[in-house]
Amino acid sequence: MKNNNSFDLRNQRNLTMLVDFYELTMGNGYLSHGLEDKIAYFDMFFRKVPDGGGYCIMAGVEQLIEYLSSLKFTKDDIDYLRNKELFTESFLNYLENFEFCCDIWAIPEGTPVFANEPLVTVRGPVIQAQFIETMLLLTINHQTLIATKANRICRAANGRSVMEFGSRRAQGYDGAIYGARAAIIGGCSATACTISDKMFNIPAIGTMAHSWVQLFDTEYEAFKSWAEIYPENCTLLVDTYNVIKSGIPNAIKVFDEILKPQGISNVGIRIDSGDITYLSNLCRQMLDEAGYEDCKIVISNSLDEYIIRDVLEQGASIDSFGVGERLITAKSEPVFGGVYKLSAVEKEGQILPKIKISENDEKITNPGFKKTVRIFHKESHMAIADILTLHDEIIDENESLELFNPIHTWKRKKITNFYTKDLLVPIFKKGQLVYTSPSVLEIKSFAQEEIKKLWPAVLRFENPHTYFVDLSDKLWSLKQDLLNQYGTFYK
Amino acid sequence: MKNNNSFDLRNQRNLTMLVDFYELTMGNGYLSHGLEDKIAYFDMFFRKVPDGGGYCIMAGVEQLIEYLSSLKFTKDDIDYLRNKELFTESFLNYLENFEFCCDIWAIPEGTPVFANEPLVTVRGPVIQAQFIETMLLLTINHQTLIATKANRICRAANGRSVMEFGSRRAQGYDGAIYGARAAIIGGCSATACTISDKMFNIPAIGTMAHSWVQLFDTEYEAFKSWAEIYPENCTLLVDTYNVIKSGIPNAIKVFDEILKPQGISNVGIRIDSGDITYLSNLCRQMLDEAGYEDCKIVISNSLDEYIIRDVLEQGASIDSFGVGERLITAKSEPVFGGVYKLSAVEKEGQILPKIKISENDEKITNPGFKKTVRIFHKESHMAIADILTLHDEIIDENESLELFNPIHTWKRKKITNFYTKDLLVPIFKKGQLVYTSPSVLEIKSFAQEEIKKLWPAVLRFENPHTYFVDLSDKLWSLKQDLLNQYGTFYK
Repeated sequence: MKNNNSFDLRNQRNLTMLVDFYELTMGNGYLSHGLEDKIAYFDMFFRKVPDGGGYCIMAGVEQLIEYLSSLKFTKDDIDYLRNKELFTESFLNYLENFEFCCDIWAIPEGTPVFANEPLVTVRGPVIQAQFIETMLLLTINHQTLIATKANRICRAANGRSVMEFGSRRAQGYDGAIYGARAAIIGGCSATACTISDKMFNIPAIGTMAHSWVQLFDTEYEAFKSWAEIYPENCTLLVDTYNVIKSGIPNAIKVFDEILKPQGISNVGIRIDSGDITYLSNLCRQMLDEAGYEDCKIVISNSLDEYIIRDVLEQGASIDSFGVGERLITAKSEPVFGGVYKLSAVEKEGQILPKIKISENDEKITNPGFKKTVRIFHKESHMAIADILTLHDEIIDENESLELFNPIHTWKRKKITNFYTKDLLVPIFKKGQLVYTSPSVLEIKSFAQEEIKKLWPAVLRFENPHTYFVDLSDKLWSLKQDLLNQYGTFYK
Repeated sequence: MKNNNSFDLRNQRNLTMLVDFYELTMGNGYLSHGLEDKIAYFDMFFRKVPDGGGYCIMAGVEQLIEYLSSLKFTKDDIDYLRNKELFTESFLNYLENFEFCCDIWAIPEGTPVFANEPLVTVRGPVIQAQFIETMLLLTINHQTLIATKANRICRAANGRSVMEFGSRRAQGYDGAIYGARAAIIGGCSATACTISDKMFNIPAIGTMAHSWVQLFDTEYEAFKSWAEIYPENCTLLVDTYNVIKSGIPNAIKVFDEILKPQGISNVGIRIDSGDITYLSNLCRQMLDEAGYEDCKIVISNSLDEYIIRDVLEQGASIDSFGVGERLITAKSEPVFGGVYKLSAVEKEGQILPKIKISENDEKITNPGFKKTVRIFHKESHMAIADILTLHDEIIDENESLELFNPIHTWKRKKITNFYTKDLLVPIFKKGQLVYTSPSVLEIKSFAQEEIKKLWPAVLRFENPHTYFVDLSDKLWSLKQDLLNQYGTFYK
């Protein structure tokens, strides 16, 4: 575990006030109506995998923990709020003495997750459970988006390494810093973002910019100067002038003169423009003929999973990809639509389920205090389905289990020979942290193991098999009862 | 000016190490070759306005200043770098004693800017001018992207207010914080992001969430409770159950019972789902009939400039828009492709222009140390064109000026009766800050004034008139000479 640095850095900045203003006006309202201690349950979930994919990669739990562990309103914050002339002194007093006391369950980072299942569940006084909505969503939405995109890109690269190169085009500083973290979780081998390496112990790497080549009088001199300083890290950018007529010949000359005599052959070249398939194949041929079969060819320039799949299908000779803007912003679908919905309240010690109905069927929520349970096949360990159950339900692994589609309930499937796993694990108990985040590289390995448990049909880029996320009998019936209650609005 | 808070907050965090790793390896390389004091010139510019628009709104200069004002490598940073076993002790020593000494010019925030013109120019020791590339691009790219998108959305709203509601879907914390800042610069009237208000003195606002409504036993009770606490800020969310059958009738009942007796009529309702045109018109009718002609109708739910234009063209009755994810991530085109390119070096006191050539014509850079000059018509004050000139050129406002297309040079236009304005203003001189950032609201006003100077044809959403960004005779000739030199690579 190497989290200390990140905690240090994060704690330099107090993000308590990074909150939608209405969380504060609602908080003030709950307090004014004596509802501040009313226990509420909220679920965070998403409705759709970006890019039409089959699953997402959960990420951001560590940063959520950091935020929740350092909630604190300063005197300055209180003064600022007082000046709004909207908040009562007793609310400001509550904030000044804010002590986080919620229970939180979350699915560990790196887990493949699916639409409509709770990724995070919060139980606590409504004033607090409501307050943390903005940052909870912001944190999980962002990192899950990028981890998921990175995972698609890495799958397209089909075993070749993918390096995250996007800091300069990220959406803000944290977009770069935590985006790099999420990219590694999704499968990238390295990042260009130095501070992310320092914070998370993930490898930072880099080659050279065109400006290095331009600064010298000739490309040859620029390459030679680089090889002299970095003989063991010599990846030369060959497209400043002309890849074939200048870049590769100069690179070979420098390899011959400077590195070969030292017995160094683990060299590389990078191409950042032009026709990737054509250039990479011609470069491969030229390098091989010069005796540099080990020279790695690195490609960058507005790549994503579609372009990578295309050029590899065309037989491009590429060893590694540098992926920038389209990964760090998830360009093809840059919004992760995670939502945070009230699912229950407690009344006289009873859990009272709540539902949000909508004319849009897919926007209807799953009520109640729930668990997200994954069902694995006993021998193959492949994931069969996820089931949402009420929190106190137990699935008997020795009985057969009937899964059914929650909309088309006649679609049924009986399974036996399975075991279950509760995906949501306790993170906070009554405000106390009870979870230790693994290191980022541990999370990455975990993700790779868990993805192996998904059927290939779920891994397809387009039109993947829809992995089942079903409801238990009990939860399904509860939902129907509530829907029938509200059905009157539609008569 | 109300910048103190933002400086305070920003300075809690040291972002010096938010840098692409290759800036460091190149820096080490420059030093090893005795090139650390070689004076280099870099330009930051973009090649294409996002979404096919006619102009961008410059933003992010204040944050760039904060970054450059607080560059500092800690002992921890140095130790981390030393462990890489790539850097010389003299380089680490250089970093430890880093003193920023570059000259920087930038176009003030809020200015409409166009493709291919320098937005920022840096002159200084190459080791420093290179180092700041990552953060310079990250800062200006992000905020210019969001200010530009916000400006499109506000134009579509056609005078109605647009509120930025996107924090929960932003790409990272700074995506939310500085995205809100940029949204205001682009024209938004308010943000939901509380910390951005506190930092930048921009209005934070909010209504209520569905969870507020759900938490009470009935919608009526929820509305009543709100009106009692916030009689002067009573915008009720009416779509938790059914807008027409429940939400609006309950809202009217609460207005009648609680607010009307107090003489309060500046109320509001918000709709967050469903058919916007149909619902808003029916709500308007119901509210008017109940005597609430002043009730504001606020719409949210995945809006952008296209949807807003559409529903307004259909005659929807909307007073104000809450815009979330599609603004804060610039969803339709979430990457701002600003680049940072070497344009010159000094050699024996002379400025030696540098060019980056490419098989892609639009990727060829403009060489030399330059100015970005805007030409205005003397009477109308409308902007006619921008011209890039060499830094020491003077355009005589008393002579006629011939503009010409830098590619199709036969396209020429002679103008008289104009005046000029240098867009790039000094920000740092030899590392010393010489510029005072206006407040965000001042920048917003400035942007609105400057946009009025653009012809309507430039403001179109699609296929706008291409505003001229031309080269002076001298700069054009210089570029041709350099291109001819490198033309040999293509023979």
